[in-house]
Amino acid sequence: MNFTLNEAMEVLERTPQSFKTLLSGLSVGWLQCNEGEGTWNAEEVIDHLIEAETTNWLPRLEMILQEGERRPFPPFDRFAHLNGKSEQQSMEEKLQHFQSIRTQNIVKLQALIPPGTNLEQTGLHPAFGKVKLRELLSTWVVHDLTHMAQITRVMAKRYSEDVGPWKEYLGILK
Amino acid sequence: MNFTLNEAMEVLERTPQSFKTLLSGLSVGWLQCNEGEGTWNAEEVIDHLIEAETTNWLPRLEMILQEGERRPFPPFDRFAHLNGKSEQQSMEEKLQHFQSIRTQNIVKLQALIPPGTNLEQTGLHPAFGKVKLRELLSTWVVHDLTHMAQITRVMAKRYSEDVGPWKEYLGILK
Repeated sequence: MNFTLNEAMEVLERTPQSFKTLLSGLSVGWLQCNEGEGTWNAEEVIDHLIEAETTNWLPRLEMILQEGERRPFPPFDRFAHLNGKSEQQSMEEKLQHFQSIRTQNIVKLQALIPPGTNLEQTGLHPAFGKVKLRELLSTWVVHDLTHMAQITRVMAKRYSEDVGPWKEYLGILK
Repeated sequence: MNFTLNEAMEVLERTPQSFKTLLSGLSVGWLQCNEGEGTWNAEEVIDHLIEAETTNWLPRLEMILQEGERRPFPPFDRFAHLNGKSEQQSMEEKLQHFQSIRTQNIVKLQALIPPGTNLEQTGLHPAFGKVKLRELLSTWVVHDLTHMAQITRVMAKRYSEDVGPWKEYLGILK
């Protein structure tokens, strides 16, 4: 096990600015490319991160603290962001929205689990059953990193053919 | 084909700051984790990017412009950065070094290939034979994105066990 709360926070704090630095001001060709039908472009990934920030991480964390294993978490709809309600926002607004809500959530997180909180306490996941607070926090971090890796992979694949014979050396394109 | 010089430059310009935003100030646990023996941690990836910036991209580009197919590129040693010469630099210095050299290289690049340059002109790769200027530039972009994806994947895997049952939903950990 490698988790520590301080190190997890380092990643959670950096993620919105990392996405901003990578994506802000990019041409639409970069922002709207994907890996084929049914896959997400960068804009849809940010929509999904906003959705998770609103309805997944903190609500579940609060359920662990308040309910323990008495009631399962409501299921998280991983495709909720595809229902179009955020389409009015520009990419810049979405990146800012994600940063604002993450900043608020970190403040809430620090209040909810002060130093010394038992991170092994448990809640009830609708599919997995018993899950630990530490596991939820670790997953939050990995989820950020997963989507950063996804966006850079999707962008790289846009040039799959343009790289010519170098494709052989670029494992990400395979 | 999707390559345009302007869009390629958008990525090349952003990469150093993206790495800085993601990595600057992170605990050593994040910076020194890897995927097992013979794999690179974040610090080694930045060393490799600095090495490629110095000895690979622009020297090869200049050979295409000046030599065409008369002489092959000297081979690029993808493991040169592991010889320890940069060990004296801190991670912050390395991130700054990469940003400085990339900024200089972009200025040179803009002078070397002004608008209207024929991006289909060719050089001689030691392994592939004939390669195009456009292919080299595309590979530079994909190489940046590959290593961003790599670092986020390596960091994610650090919590492979900490996420508990959520591992099932996190494809990056498999």
